[in-house]
Amino acid sequence: MAPMTAVGDRMHALVERLYPLCRSITGDGVRATLDIVGEYVPLQVHEVPTGTRVLDWTVPQEWNIRDAYIADTAGHRVVDFAASSLHVLGYSVPVAATMPLAELRGHLHTLPDHPTWVPYRTSYYTPQWGFCLAQETLDAMPDGEYEVRIDSTLADGHLTYAEHVVPGQVADEVIVSCHVCHPSLANDNLAGVAVAVFLARELAQRSPYYTYRFIFAPGTIGAITWLARNAERVGRVRHGLVLACAGDRGRLTYKQSRRGDAEIDRVLQHVLRTSERPHHVTGFTPYGYDERQYCSPGFDLGVGSLTRTPYAGYPEYHTSADNPDFVSPETMADTLAVCREAFAVLDRNRQYVNLSPYGEPQLGRRGLYDSLGGRSDAKQAQLAMLWVLNLSDGEHSLLDVAERSGLAFDTVAAAADALHGAGLIKA
Amino acid sequence: MAPMTAVGDRMHALVERLYPLCRSITGDGVRATLDIVGEYVPLQVHEVPTGTRVLDWTVPQEWNIRDAYIADTAGHRVVDFAASSLHVLGYSVPVAATMPLAELRGHLHTLPDHPTWVPYRTSYYTPQWGFCLAQETLDAMPDGEYEVRIDSTLADGHLTYAEHVVPGQVADEVIVSCHVCHPSLANDNLAGVAVAVFLARELAQRSPYYTYRFIFAPGTIGAITWLARNAERVGRVRHGLVLACAGDRGRLTYKQSRRGDAEIDRVLQHVLRTSERPHHVTGFTPYGYDERQYCSPGFDLGVGSLTRTPYAGYPEYHTSADNPDFVSPETMADTLAVCREAFAVLDRNRQYVNLSPYGEPQLGRRGLYDSLGGRSDAKQAQLAMLWVLNLSDGEHSLLDVAERSGLAFDTVAAAADALHGAGLIKA
Amino acid sequence: MAPMTAVGDRMHALVERLYPLCRSITGDGVRATLDIVGEYVPLQVHEVPTGTRVLDWTVPQEWNIRDAYIADTAGHRVVDFAASSLHVLGYSVPVAATMPLAELRGHLHTLPDHPTWVPYRTSYYTPQWGFCLAQETLDAMPDGEYEVRIDSTLADGHLTYAEHVVPGQVADEVIVSCHVCHPSLANDNLAGVAVAVFLARELAQRSPYYTYRFIFAPGTIGAITWLARNAERVGRVRHGLVLACAGDRGRLTYKQSRRGDAEIDRVLQHVLRTSERPHHVTGFTPYGYDERQYCSPGFDLGVGSLTRTPYAGYPEYHTSADNPDFVSPETMADTLAVCREAFAVLDRNRQYVNLSPYGEPQLGRRGLYDSLGGRSDAKQAQLAMLWVLNLSDGEHSLLDVAERSGLAFDTVAAAADALHGAGLIKA
Repeated sequence: MAPMTAVGDRMHALVERLYPLCRSITGDGVRATLDIVGEYVPLQVHEVPTGTRVLDWTVPQEWNIRDAYIADTAGHRVVDFAASSLHVLGYSVPVAATMPLAELRGHLHTLPDHPTWVPYRTSYYTPQWGFCLAQETLDAMPDGEYEVRIDSTLADGHLTYAEHVVPGQVADEVIVSCHVCHPSLANDNLAGVAVAVFLARELAQRSPYYTYRFIFAPGTIGAITWLARNAERVGRVRHGLVLACAGDRGRLTYKQSRRGDAEIDRVLQHVLRTSERPHHVTGFTPYGYDERQYCSPGFDLGVGSLTRTPYAGYPEYHTSADNPDFVSPETMADTLAVCREAFAVLDRNRQYVNLSPYGEPQLGRRGLYDSLGGRSDAKQAQLAMLWVLNLSDGEHSLLDVAERSGLAFDTVAAAADALHGAGLIKA
Repeated sequence: MAPMTAVGDRMHALVERLYPLCRSITGDGVRATLDIVGEYVPLQVHEVPTGTRVLDWTVPQEWNIRDAYIADTAGHRVVDFAASSLHVLGYSVPVAATMPLAELRGHLHTLPDHPTWVPYRTSYYTPQWGFCLAQETLDAMPDGEYEVRIDSTLADGHLTYAEHVVPGQVADEVIVSCHVCHPSLANDNLAGVAVAVFLARELAQRSPYYTYRFIFAPGTIGAITWLARNAERVGRVRHGLVLACAGDRGRLTYKQSRRGDAEIDRVLQHVLRTSERPHHVTGFTPYGYDERQYCSPGFDLGVGSLTRTPYAGYPEYHTSADNPDFVSPETMADTLAVCREAFAVLDRNRQYVNLSPYGEPQLGRRGLYDSLGGRSDAKQAQLAMLWVLNLSDGEHSLLDVAERSGLAFDTVAAAADALHGAGLIKA
Repeated sequence: MAPMTAVGDRMHALVERLYPLCRSITGDGVRATLDIVGEYVPLQVHEVPTGTRVLDWTVPQEWNIRDAYIADTAGHRVVDFAASSLHVLGYSVPVAATMPLAELRGHLHTLPDHPTWVPYRTSYYTPQWGFCLAQETLDAMPDGEYEVRIDSTLADGHLTYAEHVVPGQVADEVIVSCHVCHPSLANDNLAGVAVAVFLARELAQRSPYYTYRFIFAPGTIGAITWLARNAERVGRVRHGLVLACAGDRGRLTYKQSRRGDAEIDRVLQHVLRTSERPHHVTGFTPYGYDERQYCSPGFDLGVGSLTRTPYAGYPEYHTSADNPDFVSPETMADTLAVCREAFAVLDRNRQYVNLSPYGEPQLGRRGLYDSLGGRSDAKQAQLAMLWVLNLSDGEHSLLDVAERSGLAFDTVAAAADALHGAGLIKA
C-alpha cells in the first residue's frame, strides 16, 4: 500500500480534477465525473430514462447547461458561469432577457453574512431560474439594465449513476454510497468520491469476505433510483456506509444507522474508539445524505454515514468556500484509513460455535498453550483463545469478544483462526 | 380560557369553601362536599350500602357526627369540634362521660414537636374514640375532671363517591382520581379536588380524544369500591392520574405508575422536562394515595400520581397547619397547567404507519416541502415531517418522535397532521 | 456460633496445619490434605484412575515426590525440597545427575524482582524437571558442579477429590468449590479451603433450603473431572461459588458468573453493597479459578467467585511470600461472614404470588396493620408487606423487592413470612 501522504495526495488530485465540472442530479456533468472516476476503477454506468417511476418519485427531465451570465450594458459579464458552476441556480430553466436590477434581484441569491462567498442553490422540481453570486458583487452592481442569459436545456433524457463491485467470497454485500450531484463543492462531496475510489482499489487487493458495491449516484433521486431498481439485491445488503464531507479538517463523525445497533454501527464505533482518534458519534437523523433513503423504515438497512464535520455543520457548507483548499490530503487519508480499518474488522467479524463447550478444551495437547503453568503474565493470545472459546455460543461475534475482553480485535481474530485451525470452533 | 391567576383564585375559593366540612370515608360531610363540587361539574353520585363486599374489603358502617367537645368543670369547651373538624379522631364511637385528665389522656393526640398544631387521626376499622388537640392546649389543661362528649353515630348506611365524565371520541378512558375523605386539610386533598374540577371543565371545552373520567371518592375504600364495581370498565382504562397535594408551594413531583414506563409516565415526564419546571420524578411505591389500588398487581393500570410536595413529605402534612393559607392560587394554577399540557400530549399521541415507507416520499409534489433546496437552516416543520415518516413503523408514537428528535411535541403532531392529510401516514 | 475472632483463629490454624504439605493435581499431598479436612467435616473422597477420559481431558499419571535437592560438591544442599514444597517444579520428572551450574541454570526458576522469594511453577503436561529458588540463593551459587536429585515418581495412579454435602429441604444444589492442588501457598488456596470448611459446618447447623455441596478438588482437571462425572447432577445446580484467595488483607472482590445477572451474582452484590464493606465487583473473565469450567458455555452455571484480592492481583501471588503470615484470622472471618450472609439471603429468596392481587388486601382485619391510621412514620414492616404484596406477581423475588424498596432483605423476608402465614401469598 502506498504511504498515507501519497494516497492523500492522489485523492486530492482527483478532487481538483473533478472540481470544475458542473454536476447536477442529471446531465453531462455527472457523466464526465463518472468518466474520470472510471479511469481509477471500472464502472458499470446506468442510464435511466426520464419519466421512469422510482419508488414514490419519477426520474425528472435531464438538465444541461452550456453558458450563463449576467452582463451589464457594456457587455461585461459581472456573473459568469464559466468562472464557477455555482453561479447558476441548479436546474435553472433557460432565460434570455434584459431587465432592470430591481427585477433581476428576485432571481439572485447571495450570502450577506459571507459577502465574498457564492452560495449553492438548486430548484430541481419547481421550474425557475436564478443566479448565485457574492454579496459584494451584487453590492457593486449599479442600478440599470442587465442582460441575463442561461443557455440550459431541460428535456427528456436520463438519470445517470454508476456502480463498481469488488467481488467477495460471499454474495452478501456491503454498499458504499456517495453522492455525485454537487457541482463545484470539494468536501461535499468530491472528497467522499475520492475516498470511495481509493477504498475500492485497496479492497480489490485483499480478496474480501463480503462483496463490496460502490454506488456513485446523485443524491436522493439517485439513491431512490438504485433502491427501486435493486429490490431483490437489497435483501443481500448486510451493511453499508455513506461517505460524505470526507476531507475537511474537522474530527471524524460517525452517524449511526436508524437501527443504532447494527453491526456497521458497532464496528465503526469500535474502530474510532480503539484507534483513539478524536471523533464524535451521533444518532440517526432522517436528514443528511442518502442514509435517509437506505434507512427509510421500509428498508431499514444497516447503513451508517462517515463524515468529518457533518452535514451542514460548517460555515463553508454549500458555498464557494468549500473549494479544494478546504479539504486536505491528510484528512482524506485519515478518513480512508478509518474505512480500511473498519472494513477489515467487519470483514473478519463472525460468530463461532465452540465445538468443545463443556469445560475448557485442553489447549496444551494441541500446541495452543504455554506448557509452563504459573506464569502471572498470561499472554494476550492465550487470553484471546479463552475468551473466544467462552463466548462462542452462537450469540457472540468476535467483535463482542473484543469489546467484552478489552483485547484488540486483531488479537481476537487471530485466536479464532488458531482455534478454527485446531477444529475447536466452527463458523 | 381564563387567565392563570383567575383560575387559581377560583380554585382557591373552592378550597376555602370546602375546608370547614368534616369529611370522612363515609357520611354527610362527603355528601356536602360532592354537592358543592356538583355546582362546578355535573356529578353522578353513587351510594354503596354498608356491608357490600368490595374486593377483599367490606363497606363499613356510615359515620356521622354532630358535635364533640371536652369541657372543663366550669362547662368551658377547651376542645371543640365546632372550631375544627380535626379535633375528633375520625370514626370515633360516641362517648358521653366525665373522667379525670389522667384517664382522658389515653384518648388525646397531640404533636409535641409542633405544639400549636392539631394532628389529624382516624380509626376506621377499630372502634375507639379520641380527640386531637394542640400540645399547648393540653399543657394548659389542669388536672381534674373533664366532660367528654362525642355525638356521633356509626350505623348501617352508605359509602358515597361520585364520577364526572367528559366524553371523548373513543370509549378508551383516562381516569383522574382524587380522594375526598380528609376533613379540614387544604393541600391534602382539597387542592387536588379543585384542580380536578377545573381540569374537567377545561377538557369539556375541547372535545378530547379519550373519555376522561373524574373519580371523587374516599381514599382506599373508595378506590377499592370503584374498582370492584367497574370490573369491566377497568379494561378500557388506558391511562390515569391521581391528584393530591396539588397546592403547596413546593416543586412538582410525578410518581410513576407501577409499570414505570407507561405512556402516562412518559407523557408527564416529557411535559415536566420540556417545560423546564423545577420538578422531581420518583419511582412507584405501594404507599401514598389511591395509585396503590389502581397499581395493585392484579390491575397494574398505567396510573401515576401528580403532587407538589409528595405524600407525607412536609411537616404540615396531616395537621391543622395544612390550611387554606398553606396552598396558593399560583401553585394550584401551575399544577392545573401541567395537567392541561400533559393531557394535550396524551390526547394527541398516536402511532402512525408510513404508507410510503420505501425511501422518502416526494414531499415537494404534495406541497409539503420548501421547493428551493440547499438552505442550511432546514425548517423545524420539515424536519418533523421527516422524523414522523422515518419512525412511523407501527412501533413509535409521536411522543417517541418528539423525544428522539428533540423537536417540540406540538411541532411533531402538526407534522403528523399534515402527513395524514396528504395520505402519507395512517393511524 | 463462635465469635468471629475465634472462628478466624480456628481457620488460620487449619491453614498453618495444611501449609507444609506438598500438594499437586494428584498424589499423596492431596490425600493428606483431605485427611485433615475430613477431621472437620465428613468427606466423600473419590479416586479417579489415570487415563480416565474427562470431558476433553484425560486424567494424568499420578505424581509423588519424596525428596529433592541441589547440593554443592561439599554435599551441602543449597536448595532443599524439605525446606519448602515450592522448591521443586510441580510434576518434575525424576533426575539424578551432576552438572555444571551453566547447564543447571536452564532448569532453575527465580524472581529477579523479588530476590528473596521462591516462585511457584509447574509443568503438568510437558515432562521436564526443575527447581524454584530465591534469586539471592542463585546469586550466591559459585560456578562449578552440582548434584541434582529429584526423587519423584510419575506413574499410573489416581486423581483424588472430595465432596461434603449439607443436605437441604430441596434437591436443588448450591456448589461451593475450592482448589486443593497448590503446595505451600496460604492465600491461594488454603484460606479458601478453610473458609469453605467452616462455612459447611455453620450451614449444617441451620437446616438450609438448598442442598449445599462442597467440592475440594485440584484446579482445572479436578473441576473438569467432577463435571464429567456429574453430568446429571449439573442440572440440579442452581447456584455456586468458587472460593479462593480468601485470606489476604485486601478488600473483597466478587467476580460475576458468565451470565452476569445470575441470582448468585445479585445476592453477592446485594450483600456486599448493603453491608457497606469495601469491595469490588468484576465481570466474568475466562481465566482465574474453576469458575472457568463451571461457566464454560456448555454448562454456563450461575457460579461466581469470591476472593479478597483477586487471582494474580498481588505481588506475593504464586510465591513463597504467600505464606501463613500473608493471611489473617480477621479477613478469613470476614470472608466467611459474607458467605454466611449471602447464603442466608440466597436460601430465603423466593418468588411469591399475591393471592389477593386486586387492590390491597385488608391487612387490618388480619392483624397485620397498625389500626390507628395517619401516622406519618409508617413502619418498615408494614412497608415491606405492601411491597411484597405489590411485587408478588410471579416475576419478582424477595431480593427484587428488597432492592426496589430499599428495605433490608431480612425485613422483606419477614414480611413475606407474615403474609404467607396469613394466606395472602403463596410460593
